[in-house]
Amino acid sequence: MKRIESPKNERVKQWKKLLTKKGRDKTGLFLIEGFHLVEEAVKSGVHIEELIVAEHAIIPATWNIAHIPMTIVIDDVIKAISDTETPQGIAAVCKQLHWNIDHIQTALFIDAVQDPGNVGTIIRTADAAGIDVVVVGEGSADVYNAKVIRATQGSLFHFPVIKGDIGQWIARFQNKHIPIYGTSLQNGVDYRSVSPSSSFALIVGNEGSGVSDKWLQQTATNLYVPIYGKAESLNVAVATGILLYHLQKK
Amino acid sequence: MKRIESPKNERVKQWKKLLTKKGRDKTGLFLIEGFHLVEEAVKSGVHIEELIVAEHAIIPATWNIAHIPMTIVIDDVIKAISDTETPQGIAAVCKQLHWNIDHIQTALFIDAVQDPGNVGTIIRTADAAGIDVVVVGEGSADVYNAKVIRATQGSLFHFPVIKGDIGQWIARFQNKHIPIYGTSLQNGVDYRSVSPSSSFALIVGNEGSGVSDKWLQQTATNLYVPIYGKAESLNVAVATGILLYHLQKK
Repeated sequence: MKRIESPKNERVKQWKKLLTKKGRDKTGLFLIEGFHLVEEAVKSGVHIEELIVAEHAIIPATWNIAHIPMTIVIDDVIKAISDTETPQGIAAVCKQLHWNIDHIQTALFIDAVQDPGNVGTIIRTADAAGIDVVVVGEGSADVYNAKVIRATQGSLFHFPVIKGDIGQWIARFQNKHIPIYGTSLQNGVDYRSVSPSSSFALIVGNEGSGVSDKWLQQTATNLYVPIYGKAESLNVAVATGILLYHLQKK
Repeated sequence: MKRIESPKNERVKQWKKLLTKKGRDKTGLFLIEGFHLVEEAVKSGVHIEELIVAEHAIIPATWNIAHIPMTIVIDDVIKAISDTETPQGIAAVCKQLHWNIDHIQTALFIDAVQDPGNVGTIIRTADAAGIDVVVVGEGSADVYNAKVIRATQGSLFHFPVIKGDIGQWIARFQNKHIPIYGTSLQNGVDYRSVSPSSSFALIVGNEGSGVSDKWLQQTATNLYVPIYGKAESLNVAVATGILLYHLQKK
Protein backbone atom coordinates (compact mmCIF):
# COMPACT_ATOMS: atom_id res chain seq x y z
CA MET A 1 0.00 0.00 0.00
CA LYS A 2 1.31 3.44 -0.92
CA ARG A 3 1.95 6.01 1.73
CA ILE A 4 2.22 9.80 1.40
CA GLU A 5 3.57 11.93 4.21
CA SER A 6 3.72 15.37 2.63
CA PRO A 7 1.06 17.66 1.14
CA LYS A 8 3.74 18.72 -1.36
CA ASN A 9 3.94 15.27 -2.89
CA GLU A 10 3.38 15.18 -6.66
CA ARG A 11 0.32 12.92 -6.32
CA VAL A 12 -1.28 15.38 -3.91
CA LYS A 13 -0.79 18.13 -6.49
CA GLN A 14 -2.65 16.00 -9.06
CA TRP A 15 -5.51 15.41 -6.61
CA LYS A 16 -5.75 19.12 -5.83
CA LYS A 17 -6.26 19.84 -9.52
CA LEU A 18 -9.51 17.86 -9.25
CA LEU A 19 -10.84 20.62 -6.97
CA THR A 20 -11.04 22.84 -10.08
CA LYS A 21 -13.44 22.49 -13.01
CA LYS A 22 -10.49 22.67 -15.41
CA GLY A 23 -8.72 19.79 -13.71
CA ARG A 24 -11.87 17.69 -13.70
CA ASP A 25 -12.74 18.41 -17.35
CA LYS A 26 -9.22 17.50 -18.47
CA THR A 27 -9.10 14.14 -16.68
CA GLY A 28 -12.75 13.10 -16.64
CA LEU A 29 -12.32 12.44 -12.93
CA PHE A 30 -13.69 14.03 -9.76
CA LEU A 31 -12.83 13.93 -6.09
CA ILE A 32 -15.16 13.32 -3.17
CA GLU A 33 -14.35 13.64 0.51
CA GLY A 34 -16.16 12.43 3.61
CA PHE A 35 -17.33 9.13 5.00
CA HIS A 36 -20.97 9.36 3.90
CA LEU A 37 -20.21 10.49 0.34
CA VAL A 38 -17.58 7.80 -0.25
CA GLU A 39 -19.98 5.21 1.17
CA GLU A 40 -22.72 6.39 -1.23
CA ALA A 41 -20.29 6.20 -4.15
CA VAL A 42 -19.22 2.66 -3.21
CA LYS A 43 -22.83 1.49 -2.80
CA SER A 44 -23.95 3.11 -6.06
CA GLY A 45 -21.25 1.32 -8.04
CA VAL A 46 -19.47 4.51 -9.10
CA HIS A 47 -16.09 3.64 -10.64
CA ILE A 48 -13.56 4.59 -7.95
CA GLU A 49 -10.02 4.91 -9.27
CA GLU A 50 -8.43 5.14 -5.85
CA LEU A 51 -9.16 5.71 -2.19
CA ILE A 52 -7.21 8.23 -0.15
CA VAL A 53 -7.33 7.38 3.53
CA ALA A 54 -5.93 9.02 6.65
CA GLU A 55 -3.94 6.77 9.02
CA HIS A 56 -6.61 6.84 11.73
CA ALA A 57 -9.59 6.23 9.43
CA ILE A 58 -11.78 3.15 9.85
CA ILE A 59 -13.43 1.52 6.84
CA PRO A 60 -16.34 -0.89 7.36
CA ALA A 61 -15.64 -4.39 6.00
CA THR A 62 -19.09 -4.34 4.37
CA TRP A 63 -17.86 -1.80 1.84
CA ASN A 64 -16.06 -4.64 0.09
CA ILE A 65 -13.42 -2.48 -1.56
CA ALA A 66 -10.35 -4.72 -1.44
CA HIS A 67 -9.97 -4.37 -5.22
CA ILE A 68 -9.63 -0.57 -5.15
CA PRO A 69 -6.11 0.91 -4.94
CA MET A 70 -5.65 2.68 -1.62
CA THR A 71 -3.14 5.30 -0.51
CA ILE A 72 -2.57 6.03 3.17
CA VAL A 73 -1.86 9.70 3.90
CA ILE A 74 -1.24 12.01 6.84
CA ASP A 75 -4.07 14.32 7.98
CA ASP A 76 -2.46 17.35 6.30
CA VAL A 77 -2.86 15.68 2.92
CA ILE A 78 -6.58 15.11 3.48
CA LYS A 79 -6.89 18.76 4.54
CA ALA A 80 -5.11 19.88 1.38
CA ILE A 81 -7.55 18.08 -0.91
CA SER A 82 -10.75 18.91 0.98
CA ASP A 83 -12.92 22.00 0.75
CA THR A 84 -14.52 21.39 4.15
CA GLU A 85 -13.21 22.73 7.43
CA THR A 86 -13.33 19.39 9.22
CA PRO A 87 -12.42 16.67 6.72
CA GLN A 88 -13.27 13.13 7.78
CA GLY A 89 -10.14 11.27 6.79
CA ILE A 90 -11.39 9.58 3.66
CA ALA A 91 -11.53 10.69 0.03
CA ALA A 92 -11.91 9.02 -3.34
CA VAL A 93 -10.97 9.77 -6.94
CA CYS A 94 -13.91 8.76 -9.14
CA LYS A 95 -14.64 8.58 -12.85
CA GLN A 96 -17.25 11.03 -14.12
CA LEU A 97 -20.50 9.25 -14.92
CA HIS A 98 -22.01 8.55 -18.32
CA TRP A 99 -25.62 7.61 -18.87
CA ASN A 100 -27.64 5.80 -21.46
CA ILE A 101 -30.32 8.37 -22.22
CA ASP A 102 -32.76 6.66 -24.54
CA HIS A 103 -36.50 6.59 -23.86
CA ILE A 104 -36.53 9.83 -21.90
CA GLN A 105 -40.07 11.05 -21.21
CA THR A 106 -39.47 13.70 -18.52
CA ALA A 107 -36.55 16.08 -18.11
CA LEU A 108 -35.41 19.07 -16.14
CA PHE A 109 -33.08 21.59 -17.80
CA ILE A 110 -30.97 23.77 -15.48
CA ASP A 111 -30.06 27.09 -17.14
CA ALA A 112 -27.24 29.05 -15.47
CA VAL A 113 -28.09 28.30 -11.84
CA GLN A 114 -24.95 29.52 -10.14
CA ASP A 115 -25.12 28.52 -6.50
CA PRO A 116 -23.68 25.00 -6.07
CA GLY A 117 -26.09 24.27 -3.19
CA ASN A 118 -29.03 25.17 -5.43
CA VAL A 119 -27.80 23.00 -8.33
CA GLY A 120 -27.27 20.04 -5.98
CA THR A 121 -30.64 20.46 -4.27
CA ILE A 122 -32.38 20.74 -7.66
CA ILE A 123 -30.79 17.44 -8.79
CA ARG A 124 -31.86 15.76 -5.52
CA THR A 125 -35.40 17.12 -6.01
CA ALA A 126 -35.64 15.91 -9.63
CA ASP A 127 -34.49 12.45 -8.50
CA ALA A 128 -37.12 12.39 -5.71
CA ALA A 129 -39.84 13.53 -8.14
CA GLY A 130 -39.04 10.63 -10.46
CA ILE A 131 -37.84 12.71 -13.41
CA ASP A 132 -35.87 10.74 -16.05
CA VAL A 133 -32.91 13.08 -16.57
CA VAL A 134 -31.43 16.43 -15.51
CA VAL A 135 -29.52 18.42 -18.11
CA VAL A 136 -27.15 21.04 -16.71
CA GLY A 137 -26.57 23.78 -19.25
CA GLU A 138 -23.80 26.34 -19.66
CA GLY A 139 -23.25 28.90 -16.93
CA SER A 140 -24.41 26.61 -14.12
CA ALA A 141 -22.23 25.51 -11.23
CA ASP A 142 -20.16 22.49 -12.30
CA VAL A 143 -21.90 19.19 -11.55
CA TYR A 144 -18.72 17.73 -10.05
CA ASN A 145 -18.07 20.70 -7.74
CA ALA A 146 -17.79 19.30 -4.19
CA LYS A 147 -20.63 21.51 -2.88
CA VAL A 148 -22.95 20.38 -5.67
CA ILE A 149 -22.16 16.73 -4.99
CA ARG A 150 -22.80 17.12 -1.26
CA ALA A 151 -26.12 18.90 -1.86
CA THR A 152 -27.32 16.10 -4.16
CA GLN A 153 -27.11 13.79 -1.10
CA GLY A 154 -26.00 10.87 -3.25
CA SER A 155 -28.36 11.47 -6.20
CA LEU A 156 -25.45 12.34 -8.46
CA PHE A 157 -24.18 8.75 -8.12
CA HIS A 158 -27.35 6.95 -9.18
CA PHE A 159 -29.43 9.47 -11.11
CA PRO A 160 -28.79 10.58 -14.74
CA VAL A 161 -27.29 14.09 -14.73
CA ILE A 162 -25.83 15.28 -18.02
CA LYS A 163 -23.82 18.36 -18.92
CA GLY A 164 -25.44 19.42 -22.15
CA ASP A 165 -26.62 22.09 -24.55
CA ILE A 166 -30.13 23.16 -23.58
CA GLY A 167 -30.86 24.28 -27.15
CA GLN A 168 -30.16 20.77 -28.47
CA TRP A 169 -32.33 19.24 -25.77
CA ILE A 170 -35.21 21.59 -26.55
CA ALA A 171 -34.99 20.50 -30.21
CA ARG A 172 -34.91 16.85 -29.16
CA PHE A 173 -38.12 17.23 -27.11
CA GLN A 174 -39.80 19.30 -29.83
CA ASN A 175 -39.09 16.51 -32.33
CA LYS A 176 -40.78 14.06 -29.99
CA HIS A 177 -43.74 16.47 -29.57
CA ILE A 178 -43.25 16.57 -25.82
CA PRO A 179 -44.26 19.91 -24.24
CA ILE A 180 -41.49 22.10 -22.83
CA TYR A 181 -42.31 24.52 -20.03
CA GLY A 182 -40.14 27.50 -19.22
CA THR A 183 -40.41 29.42 -15.96
CA SER A 184 -40.99 33.16 -16.02
CA LEU A 185 -42.52 35.61 -13.58
CA GLN A 186 -43.14 38.12 -16.39
CA ASN A 187 -44.88 36.29 -19.23
CA GLY A 188 -45.99 33.10 -17.60
CA VAL A 189 -49.23 31.41 -16.58
CA ASP A 190 -50.04 30.07 -13.12
CA TYR A 191 -48.48 26.58 -13.01
CA ARG A 192 -51.77 25.08 -11.82
CA SER A 193 -53.37 25.86 -15.20
CA VAL A 194 -51.23 23.06 -16.71
CA SER A 195 -52.36 19.45 -16.22
CA PRO A 196 -50.00 16.78 -14.86
CA SER A 197 -48.49 14.59 -17.56
CA SER A 198 -46.18 11.62 -17.98
CA SER A 199 -44.04 13.44 -20.55
CA PHE A 200 -42.74 17.00 -20.33
CA ALA A 201 -39.60 19.07 -19.91
CA LEU A 202 -39.20 21.94 -17.47
CA ILE A 203 -36.54 24.68 -17.65
CA VAL A 204 -35.44 26.49 -14.48
CA GLY A 205 -32.99 29.35 -14.49
CA ASN A 206 -30.53 31.72 -12.90
CA GLU A 207 -31.18 32.95 -9.34
CA GLY A 208 -31.28 36.60 -10.40
CA SER A 209 -32.27 36.73 -14.06
CA GLY A 210 -34.28 33.51 -14.48
CA VAL A 211 -34.35 31.43 -17.67
CA SER A 212 -32.62 33.01 -20.71
CA ASP A 213 -34.96 34.72 -23.15
CA LYS A 214 -33.60 32.63 -26.01
CA TRP A 215 -35.01 29.48 -24.36
CA LEU A 216 -38.25 31.10 -23.23
CA GLN A 217 -39.02 32.01 -26.84
CA GLN A 218 -38.85 28.36 -27.86
CA THR A 219 -41.15 26.95 -25.19
CA ALA A 220 -44.84 26.15 -25.62
CA THR A 221 -45.84 27.71 -22.29
CA ASN A 222 -43.99 29.48 -19.51
CA LEU A 223 -45.08 28.93 -15.92
CA TYR A 224 -44.82 30.84 -12.69
CA VAL A 225 -45.47 30.02 -9.06
CA PRO A 226 -47.68 32.79 -7.62
CA ILE A 227 -46.31 34.84 -4.72
CA TYR A 228 -49.01 35.58 -2.14
CA GLY A 229 -46.89 37.36 0.46
CA LYS A 230 -44.32 40.12 0.21
CA ALA A 231 -41.37 37.91 -0.72
CA GLU A 232 -40.03 38.91 -4.13
CA SER A 233 -39.53 35.35 -5.29
CA LEU A 234 -38.98 31.74 -4.26
CA ASN A 235 -35.62 30.02 -4.02
CA VAL A 236 -35.06 28.25 -7.36
CA ALA A 237 -34.79 24.78 -5.79
CA VAL A 238 -38.04 25.29 -3.85
CA ALA A 239 -39.82 26.52 -7.01
CA THR A 240 -38.47 23.50 -8.91
CA GLY A 241 -39.93 21.17 -6.26
CA ILE A 242 -43.36 22.81 -6.40
CA LEU A 243 -43.41 22.69 -10.22
CA LEU A 244 -42.11 19.12 -10.65
CA TYR A 245 -44.48 17.68 -8.05
CA HIS A 246 -47.36 19.41 -9.79
CA LEU A 247 -46.38 18.50 -13.37
CA GLN A 248 -45.35 14.90 -12.77
CA LYS A 249 -48.22 12.47 -13.26
CA LYS A 250 -47.76 9.56 -10.85
CA MET B 1 -19.82 61.70 13.08
CA LYS B 2 -17.89 59.09 15.04
CA ARG B 3 -14.87 57.46 13.55
CA ILE B 4 -13.19 54.15 14.48
CA GLU B 5 -9.76 53.27 13.17
CA SER B 6 -9.01 50.04 15.03
CA PRO B 7 -10.72 46.64 15.14
CA LYS B 8 -9.69 46.52 18.81
CA ASN B 9 -11.89 49.46 19.71
CA GLU B 10 -14.37 48.77 22.54
CA ARG B 11 -17.38 49.47 20.30
CA VAL B 12 -16.15 46.92 17.76
CA LYS B 13 -16.00 44.35 20.56
CA GLN B 14 -19.64 45.08 21.38
CA TRP B 15 -20.63 44.68 17.71
CA LYS B 16 -18.76 41.40 17.45
CA LYS B 17 -20.82 40.02 20.33
CA LEU B 18 -23.86 40.39 18.07
CA LEU B 19 -22.37 37.68 15.84
CA THR B 20 -23.25 35.19 18.62
CA LYS B 21 -26.71 34.07 19.71
CA LYS B 22 -25.81 34.86 23.32
CA GLY B 23 -24.87 38.43 22.45
CA ARG B 24 -28.05 38.91 20.47
CA ASP B 25 -30.33 37.39 23.13
CA LYS B 26 -28.80 39.58 25.84
CA THR B 27 -29.23 42.85 23.95
CA GLY B 28 -32.30 42.20 21.79
CA LEU B 29 -30.26 43.48 18.86
CA PHE B 30 -28.81 41.90 15.71
CA LEU B 31 -26.25 42.86 13.12
CA ILE B 32 -26.61 42.80 9.35
CA GLU B 33 -23.90 43.39 6.78
CA GLY B 34 -24.05 44.11 3.07
CA PHE B 35 -25.59 46.72 0.83
CA HIS B 36 -28.69 44.78 -0.21
CA LEU B 37 -29.59 43.62 3.31
CA VAL B 38 -29.19 47.07 4.86
CA GLU B 39 -31.27 48.52 2.03
CA GLU B 40 -34.01 45.94 2.70
CA ALA B 41 -33.94 46.77 6.41
CA VAL B 42 -34.20 50.52 5.72
CA LYS B 43 -37.07 50.03 3.27
CA SER B 44 -38.95 47.66 5.58
CA GLY B 45 -38.88 50.16 8.44
CA VAL B 46 -36.78 47.94 10.73
CA HIS B 47 -35.58 49.97 13.72
CA ILE B 48 -31.89 50.60 12.99
CA GLU B 49 -29.91 51.70 16.03
CA GLU B 50 -26.82 52.64 14.10
CA LEU B 51 -25.10 52.33 10.75
CA ILE B 52 -21.49 51.22 10.45
CA VAL B 53 -19.96 52.44 7.21
CA ALA B 54 -16.54 52.04 5.61
CA GLU B 55 -14.83 55.21 4.43
CA HIS B 56 -15.22 54.37 0.75
CA ALA B 57 -18.88 53.32 0.95
CA ILE B 58 -21.56 55.15 -1.00
CA ILE B 59 -25.09 55.46 0.38
CA PRO B 60 -27.96 56.40 -1.95
CA ALA B 61 -29.72 59.63 -0.93
CA THR B 62 -33.06 57.86 -1.44
CA TRP B 63 -32.43 55.77 1.68
CA ASN B 64 -33.35 58.84 3.69
CA ILE B 65 -31.41 57.85 6.79
CA ALA B 66 -30.11 61.18 8.05
CA HIS B 67 -31.75 60.53 11.44
CA ILE B 68 -29.80 57.29 12.08
CA PRO B 69 -26.50 57.56 14.02
CA MET B 70 -23.59 56.62 11.77
CA THR B 71 -20.05 55.54 12.55
CA ILE B 72 -17.32 55.66 9.91
CA VAL B 73 -14.81 52.81 10.19
CA ILE B 74 -11.76 51.44 8.41
CA ASP B 75 -12.18 48.31 6.25
CA ASP B 76 -10.60 46.08 8.91
CA VAL B 77 -13.45 46.92 11.29
CA ILE B 78 -16.07 45.87 8.72
CA LYS B 79 -14.12 42.66 8.17
CA ALA B 80 -14.05 42.00 11.92
CA ILE B 81 -17.84 42.22 12.24
CA SER B 82 -18.75 40.35 9.04
CA ASP B 83 -19.09 36.62 8.47
CA THR B 84 -18.65 36.93 4.71
CA GLU B 85 -15.34 36.79 2.89
CA THR B 86 -15.91 39.95 0.89
CA PRO B 87 -17.81 42.41 3.08
CA GLN B 88 -19.40 45.32 1.25
CA GLY B 89 -18.51 48.20 3.53
CA ILE B 90 -21.84 48.72 5.22
CA ALA B 91 -23.43 47.17 8.30
CA ALA B 92 -26.26 48.03 10.67
CA VAL B 93 -27.19 47.27 14.25
CA CYS B 94 -30.95 46.58 14.34
CA LYS B 95 -33.57 45.91 17.00
CA GLN B 96 -35.06 42.42 16.96
CA LEU B 97 -38.61 42.47 15.64
CA HIS B 98 -41.86 41.96 17.55
CA TRP B 99 -45.14 41.12 15.91
CA ASN B 100 -48.80 41.50 16.71
CA ILE B 101 -50.01 37.94 16.25
CA ASP B 102 -53.77 38.10 16.60
CA HIS B 103 -56.12 36.61 13.99
CA ILE B 104 -53.66 33.99 12.80
CA GLN B 105 -55.27 31.44 10.46
CA THR B 106 -52.23 29.75 8.94
CA ALA B 107 -48.88 28.96 10.51
CA LEU B 108 -45.68 27.06 9.89
CA PHE B 109 -43.82 25.60 12.89
CA ILE B 110 -40.10 24.90 12.42
CA ASP B 111 -38.90 22.12 14.75
CA ALA B 112 -35.12 21.85 15.17
CA VAL B 113 -34.07 22.64 11.59
CA GLN B 114 -30.36 23.17 12.07
CA ASP B 115 -28.94 24.48 8.82
CA PRO B 116 -29.20 28.30 8.75
CA GLY B 117 -29.69 28.30 4.98
CA ASN B 118 -32.63 25.91 5.35
CA VAL B 119 -34.27 27.97 8.12
CA GLY B 120 -33.91 31.15 6.07
CA THR B 121 -35.20 29.55 2.87
CA ILE B 122 -38.18 28.08 4.76
CA ILE B 123 -39.08 31.55 6.10
CA ARG B 124 -38.82 33.03 2.59
CA THR B 125 -41.02 30.21 1.26
CA ALA B 126 -43.69 30.68 3.96
CA ASP B 127 -43.76 34.41 3.17
CA ALA B 128 -44.15 33.71 -0.56
CA ALA B 129 -46.93 31.17 0.12
CA GLY B 130 -48.88 33.79 2.07
CA ILE B 131 -48.72 32.04 5.45
CA ASP B 132 -49.59 34.28 8.44
CA VAL B 133 -46.73 33.42 10.80
CA VAL B 134 -43.64 31.23 11.19
CA VAL B 135 -42.81 29.94 14.67
CA VAL B 136 -39.22 28.84 15.13
CA GLY B 137 -38.98 26.30 17.95
CA GLU B 138 -36.10 25.18 20.13
CA GLY B 139 -33.12 23.51 18.52
CA SER B 140 -33.41 25.43 15.25
CA ALA B 141 -30.75 27.78 13.89
CA ASP B 142 -31.16 31.21 15.49
CA VAL B 143 -33.44 33.47 13.46
CA TYR B 144 -30.98 36.39 13.75
CA ASN B 145 -27.97 34.34 12.60
CA ALA B 146 -26.44 36.20 9.62
CA LYS B 147 -26.80 33.19 7.30
CA VAL B 148 -30.48 32.78 8.20
CA ILE B 149 -31.14 36.47 7.55
CA ARG B 150 -29.41 36.35 4.17
CA ALA B 151 -31.34 33.24 3.10
CA THR B 152 -34.68 34.89 3.98
CA GLN B 153 -33.86 37.47 1.24
CA GLY B 154 -35.51 40.24 3.23
CA SER B 155 -38.55 38.28 4.45
CA LEU B 156 -37.30 38.46 8.03
CA PHE B 157 -37.78 42.24 7.95
CA HIS B 158 -41.42 42.32 6.86
CA PHE B 159 -42.85 38.90 7.67
CA PRO B 160 -43.87 37.69 11.17
CA VAL B 161 -41.28 35.23 12.47
CA ILE B 162 -41.50 34.34 16.15
CA LYS B 163 -39.20 32.37 18.40
CA GLY B 164 -41.66 30.26 20.35
CA ASP B 165 -42.63 27.05 22.06
CA ILE B 166 -44.15 24.69 19.49
CA GLY B 167 -46.13 22.90 22.22
CA GLN B 168 -47.87 26.13 23.20
CA TRP B 169 -48.63 26.92 19.58
CA ILE B 170 -50.09 23.46 18.98
CA ALA B 171 -52.39 24.03 21.99
CA ARG B 172 -53.37 27.44 20.65
CA PHE B 173 -54.38 26.01 17.28
CA GLN B 174 -56.16 23.07 18.89
CA ASN B 175 -58.24 25.52 20.96
CA LYS B 176 -59.27 27.26 17.76
CA HIS B 177 -60.09 23.88 16.13
CA ILE B 178 -57.65 24.55 13.31
CA PRO B 179 -56.07 21.35 11.89
CA ILE B 180 -52.37 20.79 12.56
CA TYR B 181 -50.36 18.68 10.12
CA GLY B 182 -47.08 17.08 11.05
CA THR B 183 -44.68 15.71 8.46
CA SER B 184 -43.48 12.13 8.71
CA LEU B 185 -42.20 9.61 6.19
CA GLN B 186 -43.07 6.73 8.54
CA ASN B 187 -46.66 7.23 9.68
CA GLY B 188 -47.96 9.81 7.28
CA VAL B 189 -50.47 10.02 4.46
CA ASP B 190 -49.75 11.34 0.95
CA TYR B 191 -50.09 15.15 1.23
CA ARG B 192 -52.44 15.22 -1.75
CA SER B 193 -55.08 13.37 0.29
CA VAL B 194 -55.61 16.56 2.33
CA SER B 195 -57.72 19.35 0.81
CA PRO B 196 -56.45 22.93 0.60
CA SER B 197 -57.80 25.16 3.36
CA SER B 198 -57.66 28.75 4.54
CA SER B 199 -56.71 27.71 8.09
CA PHE B 200 -54.11 25.14 9.11
CA ALA B 201 -50.74 24.73 10.75
CA LEU B 202 -47.88 22.68 9.34
CA ILE B 203 -44.87 21.37 11.30
CA VAL B 204 -41.57 20.68 9.53
CA GLY B 205 -38.58 19.21 11.28
CA ASN B 206 -34.91 18.40 11.60
CA GLU B 207 -32.90 17.51 8.48
CA GLY B 208 -31.97 14.08 9.81
CA SER B 209 -34.61 13.01 12.31
CA GLY B 210 -37.67 14.94 11.12
CA VAL B 211 -40.36 16.32 13.44
CA SER B 212 -40.09 15.24 17.11
CA ASP B 213 -42.36 12.35 18.10
CA LYS B 214 -43.83 14.43 20.92
CA TRP B 215 -45.32 16.83 18.36
CA LEU B 216 -46.33 14.13 15.87
CA GLN B 217 -48.44 12.49 18.58
CA GLN B 218 -50.46 15.69 19.00
CA THR B 219 -51.29 16.29 15.36
CA ALA B 220 -54.52 15.34 13.58
CA THR B 221 -52.76 13.99 10.50
CA ASN B 222 -49.15 13.60 9.45
CA LEU B 223 -48.21 14.11 5.83
CA TYR B 224 -45.43 12.97 3.55
CA VAL B 225 -44.29 13.92 0.08
CA PRO B 226 -43.88 10.71 -1.94
CA ILE B 227 -40.43 9.88 -3.29
CA TYR B 228 -40.65 8.40 -6.79
CA GLY B 229 -36.95 8.11 -7.55
CA LYS B 230 -34.02 6.73 -5.57
CA ALA B 231 -33.37 9.86 -3.49
CA GLU B 232 -33.81 9.09 0.20
CA SER B 233 -35.64 12.31 0.94
CA LEU B 234 -36.27 15.89 -0.13
CA ASN B 235 -34.48 18.92 1.26
CA VAL B 236 -36.66 20.26 4.10
CA ALA B 237 -37.13 23.69 2.46
CA VAL B 238 -38.18 22.09 -0.84
CA ALA B 239 -40.63 19.78 0.99
CA THR B 240 -42.02 22.80 2.87
CA GLY B 241 -42.64 24.60 -0.43
CA ILE B 242 -44.46 21.62 -1.96
CA LEU B 243 -46.62 21.18 1.16
CA LEU B 244 -47.48 24.87 1.73
CA TYR B 245 -48.39 25.47 -1.90
CA HIS B 246 -50.66 22.45 -1.80
CA LEU B 247 -52.28 23.18 1.58
CA GLN B 248 -52.78 26.91 1.15
CA LYS B 249 -56.19 27.79 -0.35
CA LYS B 250 -55.79 30.93 -2.47
